[in-house]
Amino acid sequence: MNTSSKKAFEPLAIGIDIGGTGTKFGIVDRIGNVLFSGEMSTKNHLTVEPFIEELYQSLSPFIEQAGGVGRIKGIGVGAPNGNYYKNTIEHAANLPWKGIIPFGQMVEAKFQLPTVLTNDANAAAIGEMMYGAAQGMKDFIMITLGTGVGSGIVANGKLIYGHDGFAGELGHTITIPDGRFHPGTGKKGSLESYASATGVRLTALEFLEKSDKPSLLRNIPADHIDSKQVHIAAKEGDELAQEIFEYTGKILGMALANFVMFSNPEAIILFGGLTKAGDFILKPTRENMEANLIQVFENKVKILISHLKESDAAILGASALVWEMN
Amino acid sequence: MNTSSKKAFEPLAIGIDIGGTGTKFGIVDRIGNVLFSGEMSTKNHLTVEPFIEELYQSLSPFIEQAGGVGRIKGIGVGAPNGNYYKNTIEHAANLPWKGIIPFGQMVEAKFQLPTVLTNDANAAAIGEMMYGAAQGMKDFIMITLGTGVGSGIVANGKLIYGHDGFAGELGHTITIPDGRFHPGTGKKGSLESYASATGVRLTALEFLEKSDKPSLLRNIPADHIDSKQVHIAAKEGDELAQEIFEYTGKILGMALANFVMFSNPEAIILFGGLTKAGDFILKPTRENMEANLIQVFENKVKILISHLKESDAAILGASALVWEMN
Repeated sequence: MNTSSKKAFEPLAIGIDIGGTGTKFGIVDRIGNVLFSGEMSTKNHLTVEPFIEELYQSLSPFIEQAGGVGRIKGIGVGAPNGNYYKNTIEHAANLPWKGIIPFGQMVEAKFQLPTVLTNDANAAAIGEMMYGAAQGMKDFIMITLGTGVGSGIVANGKLIYGHDGFAGELGHTITIPDGRFHPGTGKKGSLESYASATGVRLTALEFLEKSDKPSLLRNIPADHIDSKQVHIAAKEGDELAQEIFEYTGKILGMALANFVMFSNPEAIILFGGLTKAGDFILKPTRENMEANLIQVFENKVKILISHLKESDAAILGASALVWEMN
Repeated sequence: MNTSSKKAFEPLAIGIDIGGTGTKFGIVDRIGNVLFSGEMSTKNHLTVEPFIEELYQSLSPFIEQAGGVGRIKGIGVGAPNGNYYKNTIEHAANLPWKGIIPFGQMVEAKFQLPTVLTNDANAAAIGEMMYGAAQGMKDFIMITLGTGVGSGIVANGKLIYGHDGFAGELGHTITIPDGRFHPGTGKKGSLESYASATGVRLTALEFLEKSDKPSLLRNIPADHIDSKQVHIAAKEGDELAQEIFEYTGKILGMALANFVMFSNPEAIILFGGLTKAGDFILKPTRENMEANLIQVFENKVKILISHLKESDAAILGASALVWEMN
């Protein structure tokens, strides 16, 4: 058997990443090439059955092109509040489907393929360990800074799922006691209320109201202000915009210090929209992490930015779950 | 071979628990019986060599009585800032020996027995898993509430040591940003500054100064007020004393919620002097933990009090490290 014909029979994996707005899916090989990929709406499906139906219709032609269902080892799903042990999505605040959804089982029945499911940030952590910045690491923490803040924790070379399958909800840890209200959880002062795209927007609105400082952001209607606009203003030298990122980095850095004192990772890997603000947010984050660490941890923990292509990373992470299957 | 003669040849383990004031040591069998035990001063030894010499002189007669060095499988040491990977004690604020001490190696050379070392709270966690409240658990967090706050984290059935061997410094996580100064670390607002015996004493002094409320504690000279006195007053119905524990429990509960959202443990096991205050501190701790947890964790995580005899627990935990040796 020559190399190319052998390759044609190597197993492939399907990766599905479910977000509040859209869902990405693709077929991936063992070394992380995304062979086929597509996208569909999540939020347009108020119930889960038609969502899975559309997912099946969208993936079927790719499966055929890839050589048929026999070549697929399994399906990996990353989803908010995904429970690895039960293959369920439970009480996900950002999804249209409420309660406890036996999502993995439903996908398995529809595709007739073994399916494994975990939360989206856990999937991202496995993707980083297999293909990204965490290759070779046994202890690291993945933090996704998007609309919300997600996390996946790897210790002793294994993802921590915890007793109920929900470990790694670091976005909901209380960072500022009695701080900003989080409408999705009803709690006050969580990391996600500050160090997410949503949080940066709220900080911008607060700073614009509390201060009289001139700012480019004052030319933008309030409902158009978002973390991207703040970044653009910061790059143009806007002081208020830079202060917004400093404030965000101060809170994020303190939270990261706490995570370091928990599991003593080799690195923290950041991923997602907010990381595009580069040093505007990373510099205060690094400084404030170090400022809050006790001596034994000082100047040891790397903060790395994921270098996986954003369009592929979610699919790669979800598909990587399949290679970990027994 | 009958049972009793077989038992005579079963291996034993030495457990050594090093505290800032005193050091406990003992010889333990496989099922957790402390056969011999003793205690000596830590703080009277300004250098480590005479400390190890006294330890050796104290343990030698016990080793002889236990059947000689051939019956001992190894030595387990629990020490503040103990590093499991390097067998060192590093920069321990509460010990008289500064810098990085190759303690495990020194003990190994003196006793001619394999020695394993970790931080005292990690040792306690292994002790609980082997003999105590965490038997059968794969995911739990041990918190020791003594003069300071220590912790050991077990996930997937294994203690988390982290990349550098210092995981589980939860006492130093920042719980109240810009809060109370910790003279040992130079950081502000750590859990240890509030939820330790030292923290309760400081809270008592603060409350007595800030409020005009009558209190039994006002009859005690300031330098005699400690967590024990606060507990005695609380039992006699003293409102201010009860408020001191409520305040402590509020902060501890919030911190525990954060730990739960990190590793999703089945239980949190509390150990140490502060737990003697019973429901005065446990009730507000439980309430405030639940109040800060997001829905998926609500009413799931047990808070348990260690039921190991306090005099044995430290030795048991340290000796338990030996049975985990390869």
